[in-house]
Amino acid sequence: MIYVVGIGPGSKEMMTLEAIKAMEDADVIVGYKTYINLITEFIQDKEVVQNGMRQEIDRCKQAVEIAKTGKKVAVISSGDAGIYGMAGLILELTTKEEQEVSVKVIPGVTTSIGAAAILGAPIMHDFCHISLSDLLTPWEVIEKRLKLAADADFVICLYNPRSKGRSEHLARAFEIMGEFKGGNTPVGIVKDVGREKEEKFVCTFDTMDFERVDMTTMVVIGNKSTFIHDDLMITPRGYTV
Amino acid sequence: MIYVVGIGPGSKEMMTLEAIKAMEDADVIVGYKTYINLITEFIQDKEVVQNGMRQEIDRCKQAVEIAKTGKKVAVISSGDAGIYGMAGLILELTTKEEQEVSVKVIPGVTTSIGAAAILGAPIMHDFCHISLSDLLTPWEVIEKRLKLAADADFVICLYNPRSKGRSEHLARAFEIMGEFKGGNTPVGIVKDVGREKEEKFVCTFDTMDFERVDMTTMVVIGNKSTFIHDDLMITPRGYTV
Repeated sequence: MIYVVGIGPGSKEMMTLEAIKAMEDADVIVGYKTYINLITEFIQDKEVVQNGMRQEIDRCKQAVEIAKTGKKVAVISSGDAGIYGMAGLILELTTKEEQEVSVKVIPGVTTSIGAAAILGAPIMHDFCHISLSDLLTPWEVIEKRLKLAADADFVICLYNPRSKGRSEHLARAFEIMGEFKGGNTPVGIVKDVGREKEEKFVCTFDTMDFERVDMTTMVVIGNKSTFIHDDLMITPRGYTV
Repeated sequence: MIYVVGIGPGSKEMMTLEAIKAMEDADVIVGYKTYINLITEFIQDKEVVQNGMRQEIDRCKQAVEIAKTGKKVAVISSGDAGIYGMAGLILELTTKEEQEVSVKVIPGVTTSIGAAAILGAPIMHDFCHISLSDLLTPWEVIEKRLKLAADADFVICLYNPRSKGRSEHLARAFEIMGEFKGGNTPVGIVKDVGREKEEKFVCTFDTMDFERVDMTTMVVIGNKSTFIHDDLMITPRGYTV
């Protein structure tokens, strides 16, 4: 049995009851070491399999092998396991090899939702998620999505917005979106949602400071109706108030 | 104090600890009556303000008035309060009138995430949410978003896909997306996510049965890589497995 568990952005408060129960029920916890550090209270007396970035395939293969021995395994992802998390990889592995391993995906609060709650209500209307990481997606596909999403006036949430190896992606993304997003469009930035060092900034498209952003940051770009009030970012649903 | 609480799709299991604590801490619970029925265990000995569909503004104004008297109010939304929920309206009201009422938005698992976990892993890559309700959004805007989102090869999650008064919207949406989404594109349908009558169907764009869909249904349309395996719908992240 494999539970693929979304643990939410970081704090226990943002975990679902089901996620907590799955981790308590598991014999083995498998995860990226940074995320294991967020759930230390759930790993007492359990076997833990952890490794580093870009070792997702190894990690998931190990989880499947352990589950085949009859143990209950919880594979953890931050946020929701089904959004840029481990649910896909686990299911790709088990379906490809016709493995007789039960898989249960346990949903969690993804980082855009956690960030939105801190910013106010920026994703109240139609929105999209775009990851700026081109490790697994051709950059042309990402550029096309940025352009069409901006043209469609979606609120846009950027995952993996900026790493040391890809420090220019975010500026390029803003350049592309700038064809349709006005300079006054509100932009919300939340670092380390639900974790100790959580920080929040609200600015506009024109005053965006790319240096504030790293890989643990969520960037939310408003639509044509989004407004800023004090430090809140609000996208109206369309009610006349 | 107003807590704007996302209670998740329906079951207690999918609530976050923070959502549960907020409801327990509140003196008054405010919500749409259908959602109040999902949280009966939390309303014992509490004042409850509930009303019907399309009375969102009244409901939120009442919540603000009650909070001004010093009571702690929990305004509940199904899913996440910040996604087509009550967070925006509450903040629009309190910021517009410069009300001295504290507001805390408490994130929840939105229905697309709950539905995705049941379907397998359909939203593993870039995706968007589009509501097909034109009560608060001009239909032309919705059509434009559908077209551009399909062209961008987003996985597309449709909220409010079909009501009695708008039974043709969904078919029209498929017609628009059909310019870019091939006939074999997987489509996942989940009714009443996390509730008693939960039902799941997986089909393709060409074999879509619109009659299965009502207002409590989530419709997820895959991207060019999404595949079906048995009754699972999986969108690869891009790993070579």
